[in-house]
Amino acid sequence: MARKIDADPLSSWRVPVGGKGFALKRRDPGAKPLSGGDKHADKARVAELAREIDTLQNLLFADRRFKLLILLQGTDTAGKDGTIRAVFRETSPLGVRTQAWQAPTELERSHDFLWRIHAQVPRAGEIMIHNRSHYEDVLVPVVNGALDAAGTRQRCAQINDFERMLSETGTVVMKFMLHIGFEEQRERLQKRLDDPQARWKFSPADLTVRQQWTAYQQAYDALLRATSTDWAPWTVVPADSKTHRNLMIATLVRDKLKSLPLRYPPKPELDGIVVE
Amino acid sequence: MARKIDADPLSSWRVPVGGKGFALKRRDPGAKPLSGGDKHADKARVAELAREIDTLQNLLFADRRFKLLILLQGTDTAGKDGTIRAVFRETSPLGVRTQAWQAPTELERSHDFLWRIHAQVPRAGEIMIHNRSHYEDVLVPVVNGALDAAGTRQRCAQINDFERMLSETGTVVMKFMLHIGFEEQRERLQKRLDDPQARWKFSPADLTVRQQWTAYQQAYDALLRATSTDWAPWTVVPADSKTHRNLMIATLVRDKLKSLPLRYPPKPELDGIVVE
Repeated sequence: MARKIDADPLSSWRVPVGGKGFALKRRDPGAKPLSGGDKHADKARVAELAREIDTLQNLLFADRRFKLLILLQGTDTAGKDGTIRAVFRETSPLGVRTQAWQAPTELERSHDFLWRIHAQVPRAGEIMIHNRSHYEDVLVPVVNGALDAAGTRQRCAQINDFERMLSETGTVVMKFMLHIGFEEQRERLQKRLDDPQARWKFSPADLTVRQQWTAYQQAYDALLRATSTDWAPWTVVPADSKTHRNLMIATLVRDKLKSLPLRYPPKPELDGIVVE
Repeated sequence: MARKIDADPLSSWRVPVGGKGFALKRRDPGAKPLSGGDKHADKARVAELAREIDTLQNLLFADRRFKLLILLQGTDTAGKDGTIRAVFRETSPLGVRTQAWQAPTELERSHDFLWRIHAQVPRAGEIMIHNRSHYEDVLVPVVNGALDAAGTRQRCAQINDFERMLSETGTVVMKFMLHIGFEEQRERLQKRLDDPQARWKFSPADLTVRQQWTAYQQAYDALLRATSTDWAPWTVVPADSKTHRNLMIATLVRDKLKSLPLRYPPKPELDGIVVE
């Protein structure tokens, strides 16, 4: 009998609107709320979900009314790239686009911080994945002391307004914070350094950011509390286990797509046409 | 002695925040609140203001902290093109960009209505003029019955949020509604039809829109009331007189630029350098 996956085991991983009582340190990065206990079975489940997502994306594209924006946040080595690879490996690149955000260019800095983001939101029928996001424009300046409390509040309010507008105009916004532990990050960074094929991903700046671990965790706490909304809620994803991280995100994306009233558009004008 | 122009004669032309008591029909499109009574003197004044605007734009560019977004709305023949030509004729195209909005393309329609607008807001140091604007995305569907009261309210709230974010991030937003009378439009459309060099601007659709004159005036009333905000107020510009229309807009743009704390950025590292 197939194991039934319901939404309940994930309720504590959603950041409540208003953020009351939420703190990352009370969420175990090693948790596996959706696991059946067998890693191979979990992996097979991810592969199956990836195929379902492909079918649903096809329908999303044909329907042309909804857009799906998926934001992946998380510290270095949290697994943003790996998630995209695993969850969307069955989906045609025609239907999914990815945008990886880095430090803004001079042109981008000469505009409001949402300017470059808005330009890269999904069009109708499309899934767009942002690897990092406009949340970096709060996290980084908060940790570096460039944004004070009032500035942070203003920026969070601007984000909430922006995401509400996206939601009201047909965009489903899913925000995932990939949550790994301090020791897990140490191991992953060391592995990156030691592996000639992964070493290019390592930057000495990663160690500086690692030294600010606590400051980043606190900045994340405040950010997730301030920007988890009815129209664009945050989900924290325990990410020490790569397989379970993929399983959880694939499940949530599949469930969200399934919950939309998607349909292949009726085309009555084609009735009775015979191709000879 | 030079005639002093102060802001008072224009107070009744600003749409109050909240819109209380405002209606276009109580504003005379033939009014000339800033005129000295001599058309030639008024024209000379416009030319002088255009030169001042050029100097100020240069400073705005050097300062690199502010952006100026100017929206021009108004029915056909209200004088949007003519305003841009007269007010910015002395300003280098390097410092001023214009975007004329038409009916959205298929790609634009597959995004939220602010997507294409956001992509064309000014960068730091720049003046951007929108000939028509996101307000068309309320006016047209309201008049055509495609947007109900709730939809209109939602769209106006989205616009107010968007413009507040722009304002908070350093953009000065000036919104001008060029207000001409029904008879004045008749004369201008007829002239357009009769002049071989202007005829290309005429479209039979202009007459359809003219037949909806009252509906558009009412839609404008509601729109101006709902979207005149502290951060992006509307000014109605009486526009039956082209010279006075230019005089009023040039005066307001010049005054606004002068009110900003602009300065040539100090560069102490250049002190004492001698070019030989």
